[in-house]
Amino acid sequence: MKLRKSIRKYTSKKIDREILNELLEIACRASTTGNMQLYSIILTEEEAMKEKLAPAHFNQPMIKQAPLSLTFCADFRRFSKWCTDRNAEPGYNNFLSFLNATIDALLVAQTFCVAAEERGLGICYLGTVLYNARPIIDALELPPLVFPITTITVGYPAEDPQPVDRLPLEAIVHQERYKDYTSESINALYAHKESLAENLQFIQENKKETLAQVFTDVRYKKGDNERISKDLLVELKKQGFL
Amino acid sequence: MKLRKSIRKYTSKKIDREILNELLEIACRASTTGNMQLYSIILTEEEAMKEKLAPAHFNQPMIKQAPLSLTFCADFRRFSKWCTDRNAEPGYNNFLSFLNATIDALLVAQTFCVAAEERGLGICYLGTVLYNARPIIDALELPPLVFPITTITVGYPAEDPQPVDRLPLEAIVHQERYKDYTSESINALYAHKESLAENLQFIQENKKETLAQVFTDVRYKKGDNERISKDLLVELKKQGFL
Repeated sequence: MKLRKSIRKYTSKKIDREILNELLEIACRASTTGNMQLYSIILTEEEAMKEKLAPAHFNQPMIKQAPLSLTFCADFRRFSKWCTDRNAEPGYNNFLSFLNATIDALLVAQTFCVAAEERGLGICYLGTVLYNARPIIDALELPPLVFPITTITVGYPAEDPQPVDRLPLEAIVHQERYKDYTSESINALYAHKESLAENLQFIQENKKETLAQVFTDVRYKKGDNERISKDLLVELKKQGFL
Repeated sequence: MKLRKSIRKYTSKKIDREILNELLEIACRASTTGNMQLYSIILTEEEAMKEKLAPAHFNQPMIKQAPLSLTFCADFRRFSKWCTDRNAEPGYNNFLSFLNATIDALLVAQTFCVAAEERGLGICYLGTVLYNARPIIDALELPPLVFPITTITVGYPAEDPQPVDRLPLEAIVHQERYKDYTSESINALYAHKESLAENLQFIQENKKETLAQVFTDVRYKKGDNERISKDLLVELKKQGFL
């Protein structure tokens, strides 16, 4: 687990249904709010569906190349239907319920990933799900009270990349209270990251002055974030969670 | 991993700092949006802080009884500070950024949990964090662009409970497209859960007609969910994410 890395290139080897089911069983042992299991998992294996989903993931090659993708959805629909059918009035069309279901979906997703990696599979998270929620909702035919949170691609690794850098633990861990950052502490905590050859190259390639500018001006731009935030709130409302 | 269960009673044995640091290192290898590491982890070990946090967790005994709790926070503050200090304009005070950071925080949390359990520790998630975000934000002194997502209690198990039931995989997994539920499929998928002695007892104890009513009328009530949803949106705004 200490050497893990995301895998973006896969061999053509399919994943046995038995292995897949075992991983899914393990994933569903993850903690879940009040044992309500507020998630659904959509498997993508058909070529036609991969073609349909690819643009929503900005045509990242993994989605078509991986033998399997899993989209983990926050799902209060199944539970609510059960309530209605049992003479109980569900009250889960709201933001708290969305976040509870989001937590559930992500604990299952990450448990799946750790278990898959322990069995020699490689995974990659596609954060693009939140950037293009509507086309994904439409393609996967997600009804109200179901919302896609993340997709992972899975397969046997056809690459062996170096693990990427991480900040030192002191950057992440706070004892008892949040210890706010100063310019001095930021300098110290980011020094290693900023010294790495691949990050220096990244600045050059993008013709920027600093690594941070590659993020703010190229990869995760304010204008995009604001537009997508608006869209997301609209889609949450359409799916019945706001 | 297939037999895991949440642990709510712990021995008084402390967790070695070395073991804890190793678990934290492993947790931080989890996938993270654009390698931005949009999370912070607050450790709670002092008695005074446990006392302060306990009411926000509805005085669940684990928070005081466990030697250690970890609160996983969505954190765009550190990254934004780094940007500002590097002549880059951060644009992360919005809802998309909150969700991206929430995903990051939960992948780290769950990786920590799996690794901890593999080393013989027991954990329990406290979903109460979202129910009482404000007192937790205040106690942990979380600044803008930091939001508590979940807390886990950790320690060596002093109990060995039976794993609780889960729905069959067919309830959770959809092939290619979401297959909506019918009354018939709900009956079949929930039959095992509804037949369990502990769930029948749960109905009796709560003087309800159905298990679903225990959830809607006692445990996760519409009125509470709506009130807390409003509060959450207010707190998200106060912390700069809306």
